[in-house]
Amino acid sequence: MSSDPLVVFTPSGKRGRFPVGTPVLTAARQLGVDLDSVCGGRGICSKCQITPSYGAFPKHGLTVASDALSKWNAVEARYDEKRGLKPGRRLGCQAKIEGDVVIDVPAESQVHRQVVRKEATARAIQMDPATRLYFIEVDEPDMHEPTGDLERVARALRDQWDIASVGIAFPVLSRLQTILRKGGWRITVALHSATEGSAPKIVAAWPGLHEGGLFGLAIDLGSTTIAAHLTDLDTGAVVASQGLMNPQIRFGEDLMSRVSYAMMNPGGDQEMTRTVREAIDTLTAAIAEEAGITPELILEAVFVCNPVMHHLLIGIDPVELGQAPFALATSSSMTLSAAELSLGILPAAAQIYILPCIAGHVGADAAAVALSEQPGQSPDLALIVDVGTNAEILLGDTERVLACSSPTGPAFEGAQISAGQRAAPGAIEAIRIDPVTKAPRFRVIGCPLWSDEDGFWEAVASTGITGICGSGIIEAVAELRIAGLMDPSGLIGSAEQTGTDRCVAEGRTHAYLIHDASADGGPRITVTQGDIRAIQLAKSALYAGARLLMDERGVDKVDRVVLAGAFGAHISPLHAMVLGMIPDVPLEKVTSAGNAAGTGARIALCNKAARREIERMVGEISKIETAIEPRFQEHFVAANAIPHATDPFPELSAIVTLPSVSFNQGGGDPGATGGRRRRRRSPA
Amino acid sequence: MSSDPLVVFTPSGKRGRFPVGTPVLTAARQLGVDLDSVCGGRGICSKCQITPSYGAFPKHGLTVASDALSKWNAVEARYDEKRGLKPGRRLGCQAKIEGDVVIDVPAESQVHRQVVRKEATARAIQMDPATRLYFIEVDEPDMHEPTGDLERVARALRDQWDIASVGIAFPVLSRLQTILRKGGWRITVALHSATEGSAPKIVAAWPGLHEGGLFGLAIDLGSTTIAAHLTDLDTGAVVASQGLMNPQIRFGEDLMSRVSYAMMNPGGDQEMTRTVREAIDTLTAAIAEEAGITPELILEAVFVCNPVMHHLLIGIDPVELGQAPFALATSSSMTLSAAELSLGILPAAAQIYILPCIAGHVGADAAAVALSEQPGQSPDLALIVDVGTNAEILLGDTERVLACSSPTGPAFEGAQISAGQRAAPGAIEAIRIDPVTKAPRFRVIGCPLWSDEDGFWEAVASTGITGICGSGIIEAVAELRIAGLMDPSGLIGSAEQTGTDRCVAEGRTHAYLIHDASADGGPRITVTQGDIRAIQLAKSALYAGARLLMDERGVDKVDRVVLAGAFGAHISPLHAMVLGMIPDVPLEKVTSAGNAAGTGARIALCNKAARREIERMVGEISKIETAIEPRFQEHFVAANAIPHATDPFPELSAIVTLPSVSFNQGGGDPGATGGRRRRRRSPA
Repeated sequence: MSSDPLVVFTPSGKRGRFPVGTPVLTAARQLGVDLDSVCGGRGICSKCQITPSYGAFPKHGLTVASDALSKWNAVEARYDEKRGLKPGRRLGCQAKIEGDVVIDVPAESQVHRQVVRKEATARAIQMDPATRLYFIEVDEPDMHEPTGDLERVARALRDQWDIASVGIAFPVLSRLQTILRKGGWRITVALHSATEGSAPKIVAAWPGLHEGGLFGLAIDLGSTTIAAHLTDLDTGAVVASQGLMNPQIRFGEDLMSRVSYAMMNPGGDQEMTRTVREAIDTLTAAIAEEAGITPELILEAVFVCNPVMHHLLIGIDPVELGQAPFALATSSSMTLSAAELSLGILPAAAQIYILPCIAGHVGADAAAVALSEQPGQSPDLALIVDVGTNAEILLGDTERVLACSSPTGPAFEGAQISAGQRAAPGAIEAIRIDPVTKAPRFRVIGCPLWSDEDGFWEAVASTGITGICGSGIIEAVAELRIAGLMDPSGLIGSAEQTGTDRCVAEGRTHAYLIHDASADGGPRITVTQGDIRAIQLAKSALYAGARLLMDERGVDKVDRVVLAGAFGAHISPLHAMVLGMIPDVPLEKVTSAGNAAGTGARIALCNKAARREIERMVGEISKIETAIEPRFQEHFVAANAIPHATDPFPELSAIVTLPSVSFNQGGGDPGATGGRRRRRRSPA
Repeated sequence: MSSDPLVVFTPSGKRGRFPVGTPVLTAARQLGVDLDSVCGGRGICSKCQITPSYGAFPKHGLTVASDALSKWNAVEARYDEKRGLKPGRRLGCQAKIEGDVVIDVPAESQVHRQVVRKEATARAIQMDPATRLYFIEVDEPDMHEPTGDLERVARALRDQWDIASVGIAFPVLSRLQTILRKGGWRITVALHSATEGSAPKIVAAWPGLHEGGLFGLAIDLGSTTIAAHLTDLDTGAVVASQGLMNPQIRFGEDLMSRVSYAMMNPGGDQEMTRTVREAIDTLTAAIAEEAGITPELILEAVFVCNPVMHHLLIGIDPVELGQAPFALATSSSMTLSAAELSLGILPAAAQIYILPCIAGHVGADAAAVALSEQPGQSPDLALIVDVGTNAEILLGDTERVLACSSPTGPAFEGAQISAGQRAAPGAIEAIRIDPVTKAPRFRVIGCPLWSDEDGFWEAVASTGITGICGSGIIEAVAELRIAGLMDPSGLIGSAEQTGTDRCVAEGRTHAYLIHDASADGGPRITVTQGDIRAIQLAKSALYAGARLLMDERGVDKVDRVVLAGAFGAHISPLHAMVLGMIPDVPLEKVTSAGNAAGTGARIALCNKAARREIERMVGEISKIETAIEPRFQEHFVAANAIPHATDPFPELSAIVTLPSVSFNQGGGDPGATGGRRRRRRSPA
C-alpha cells in the first residue's frame, strides 16, 4: 500500500496513495476533491480537465517525474483535435496515475468554483446550483424482465452516480421514451434537488451528451420595474440582463393603489396576476433571444419581490396586505414549477424558487438584500437601504438585525416627476448647479461627458435629452439647495429672489429650468415645485423608516450606510445626505451595493445552500411595522425639511455649507404632489 | 396511580388506568384505541361516539357503576337535540372517567372500520384513506409577530393534531385567507398523505367544521368501457356507480388499433388523451350529480387500466407498446394532481393515484385484480381471469404468481357481434336452447323473468329487446353447441341439417334466430356465423393465455378458477367451460369475483397501505409476454374448436354430453370476422 504512488491535488491540498493505473478522476472522487464531470468518466464531456505539475515539490515532499501520468491517449487526442485542450491540460478520466504526482484542478474544472462579484465589498458566490447535469447510459428494455424506461433511467442514476432515488417532472416523462431512443440509450438528464433530504427530480432530458448549457433567471420583480439576469448555471456568469416596466402600473403606480384596485374590481387581482405573468414571459423570451439560447434551456428561476408583488405573482388576492394586521397568505419560501405559475415561455418543468417574506410589508426582496449584504455578519452597525418604489431598510450587526419597509412611492424611479423617466439613454442622471452663475451642467445616460465638455452635444445628438431619471432628480433637488435656489422647507425662489431667470414662474410656484429644446420641438426639462414635494415625501419616508429602526435599536447614529437598489449605484452619497435621505455618516462610510435584491436572487439561484440560509435568517430578523408606528409619522414629518431642522449634520457641514435662505410666500399649498397619499403633510 | 379508575375498551380489549376526570377520547388516544375525531375533542363533529357498558364484567375483572362516567353535559344535550344521539351513546370527548368502566367503540366511530364486500369470498376493506379531515382553531395574525396565515395553520396542525410538518396544494393556498376569515379562524382541512415518510399536503379547506363529507372515485378505465364508483371516504360506502363507453373507440376498437392510430396520425395520441380525459370529466360530473354532491368534494381518484390506456391517460404516446419489446414509459405507480392530468371537473388539487403496471402488456388493471383477489395468498392454485377487451390472466398460489394479458378483442363486451350491445336494460344476458324443440328462451337485463314465463313480455314492453350483451352471446354460442345446432369447429348447421327453421341461411353460412320483432319495426336478433368466429377468436386467446401460464408453472390443471371483469359475474361457469374459455375444473370450483379490477381500485382508494402492498406485489409477479411466445400461437390454434379436439374434458362430460355433429360444407372461408387480426386461423 505504502509503495503506491502519492497524489497531491492543488489547490485543495488533498492527498492520498493510489494503485498504479488509477484514473485521476477516480482518485479525486475518492479524496473528495472538487473535480467536475458530467459524463461520469467516459471522456466525452471534458469537464474533468486537470493540469499535472512536474519537477520537485519540497513543500509536498515529492518529485514528479515526466512519466508520472499515463501517456496522452486516443480519447484525449480525439478530444483535442475536435475541440482543443489548453497546453498542459489532461482529461482527468483518461490520465492514469503511474507515479507520485501533483495535480492542479483549474477553477473551471471545479464544481463549486467561486464567481467573483463586481462589487468590491461583496462576498463571492460559490457555485452549487440546485439543478445539475448527469450523463447516463441506460439499459435497453428486455421483454423478459419488463421494467419501464423511467425505472431503468433511475437504475442508471443509482449505478452510475450513486443517486439513490429520483422523481421526474410530469412534462418530461411524456418525452422520455423518444429521447432515450434518439440518444441510443445514452442521455443527459438535468436533476433538480429542492432540499437536502428530498429525492432529486428529472426536470429535463436530452439525447446523448448535452452540451448546450443550463441557465437560470434571477428576477427582481419590483412594483415599477422587472429586472432579470440570465445566469449560466455552470459558470455562474450573467450572460444577459434586461429590464421591463411592470405593466401592472396601469392598475396603480404604488402598491397600495394596486391593492385598492383588487378591492374595488372583482377579479382585479387575477387580472393583475395575468398581466405580470405575461410580462415575465415577454422578458424571458427577450432575454433568451439576447443571449442566443432557446428558453427550453432555462430550467430555474428565482424571484425576489415585495409582499404585494409576491402575492400577485403566485395568484393570491393581496387584499389582506392592504389593511392591518397585514397578514401574508404565506411567508415561507416556495418551490414550484413554471406550469403551476402559468409561465408559458419557460419549460413547464422549470423550477421556480421564491424567497421567503419577512413580514406583511417586508418582502422577499428585503430577504434577498439580507442574503446579499449579510447585515448579521457585520461587526459595525450597518444601515442598508434598497431604494425602489418601496424602500426595504435593514439595520444590523452581529448582535441583531432589524428590518422594515417604507412606502417611498415611485418618485425615486422617475415616476410622478414632471420630466421624469426611467433610467435609459437620454435621461439626465447627474447634475451640478454652479453656485455663482446658477447655471446647470449635467450628464445623460449613454454618454460619459458633462454637458459643458467638448463633444457632448454631438455625442447625444442621436438619443437627444429626453428627461430626468431617479438619480438625476435626487441630485437636482440637492443641488438646488446647495446653490441657494431652494430654502430648507423645499420652496424654489423666484427669479428675483434667486437672481437667475432659470427660476421661472409656474402657477403660484416656481420651477428651475435645466434644459429647453422646445424651440426645436424637443422637451423642456424643469424641476417643478411638485417634483420637489414628491422627492420630499419619498425621502422623508425613507429617512423615517431608518430612524424607526434606530429607535428600536436604541441608537441615534449608525456606523455605515449601504445604498442598494436598481439605481443605488448611481446616487451620489453627498447629495443623498444633503437631501436628508439617509442618516448622517462620514461620506467614506457610504457604499453602494448595486442591485442587492437582484444579487440576492442570483446567490439563491447559484447556490442551493443559500436558500436554506435565508430561510433560517428571516426567522431571526426582527420586523418593524412602519404603518402602525406613531413614531414613523413623527419622523416622517420631521424629515420633510432640507436639511433636517432638528439635526445639526456636523459631518456634512464640513463638506458643504447650506445657505440659510427662505422663500416663504405665506399660506397655500405649494403645489404638492402625492394626492393619493393619506399622510399628514408638514406645513410649507 | 393504581387507585385510578380502570378503563377497558371493546372490541380492541385495550385497557389502562386514568385519573378521574380524563375524557374518554383522551384515554382512547393514549391507549391507541381506534376512535375517530375530526374536531379534536371540541364536541362538534360527533365522530367520537362511544357506548359505556354497566354492570359486572367478570371477564375484565371489574364492575361498572352507573356513575362511572360524568353526567350527560350541555354539549351532549345540545348535540342530541340538534342531530340526535342513539340511546346509550355518549360523546367520547365530553364524557369523563369517574370510575372503572367498559367502553365500546361502535363500528361507525372507528377510523379503520371494515367495509364488508358483497362477494362472499372476498376480504373486507379496512378504511385507512390517504385523505382525512382535521378541524383546527388557528391563531389570528399579529402584526408584532408577523407570520403567514399558512404558517399559523401549520402550527395549529402541529399543536392540535401532532402533525409535524405540512405542505399545501397550490390551488388551495390562493383561497386559504378567505376561508380562514369566513370561518372565524376555525376551519377544516383535508390532508392527503401520499407516502408514509412524506409530509401531508392540504388539498382542501372549508370554513368551520366541514360536514359535507369527502369522496373518492375508483375508476376502471377499460378499452371499451369506463366504470366509476363514487366512494364515501369516511364510511367506504359506494354511493353511486356509473359507466360510459370509452369514446376512444372511434380511433380503434381494440388497443392495437389505437396504437396504430397514434403511429399513423401525428398528434393522434394527444387527440386520444384529450378524448378520454373529457370522458372522465363527463363521467365525474354525472356521478356527482347522481349522488347529489358537488364535484368539489371528490378529493381523490384511483385509476386502474391496461398499459395503453395508462399511457393515453397520462399523455404518453403509446407507440412503444405497439412493438417489441413493448417498453412502458414508466411502470411505477403515480400520484399526481387533477390539474396535472387536465381533469377539469375534479378540484385541481384532487390527488390521483394510478396503480403500477406489471409489464408492457399487463397493466395496472391486472395489478388491481391481484390486489383484490390476492392469488399470492391462495393455498390452492388459482387461475384468475378478468375478461374485457383485453383479458388479464393471473395464475398463482402462495408459492409463485404468474401474469399475462391476452388480446381477446371486444367480442366479450358485445362489440363486433351482429346484434351485440353493451350490458344495459333490454340486452339479452342469458339464453337456453331446448335440445328437442331447438327453441330459445332468454332473460334480458332489467327483468328477472325468463321469456317463457308469464308476464315477461309485459315486463319488457318499456325497454323492448334491443340486442345481446357479452354474457348473452357466450351463452348463446355454448347453447348452440349443447343443442347440437353447431359442430365442434363452430359451424352452424342449415335448417335441413338441424331440423329447425330457426337456422336460417345468411350468405354461404347460417345464422340462428333468437328473436324477431322486425314485423313490428323491432330488431331481428340472430347469432351469425361471424359472431361465432368472433367469440371463437376471443375465447381461444383467453384459453391460450391461461395455458401459457400453466405451461410456465409446469401444470396441466388448476385447482380453481375465478372469473372477474365487468361481466364476469354474469358468465355461467357451465357455458364458459362448454365454450372452452377456461380450463376444466369442477363446476363448484368456478367462482365469480365481480369487477375485480374495479374492486382493486376501491381497495387502493380506501386504504393507503394497500397502495404500498400492490407496489410491492407487482415486483414479485412473474410476467409472461404472450405476443412473442410461439406456444401462445399453438395453444391459440388448438383452442379454436368447441370443445377442444385434444382435450377429453372428463369433468364436463359428466354434466353434459356434447353431440358429435359435423356441418362441414367443404372448402371456403365460412364468413369469419376479425379481418384486422393477423393471426393464423385454424382450418374450418
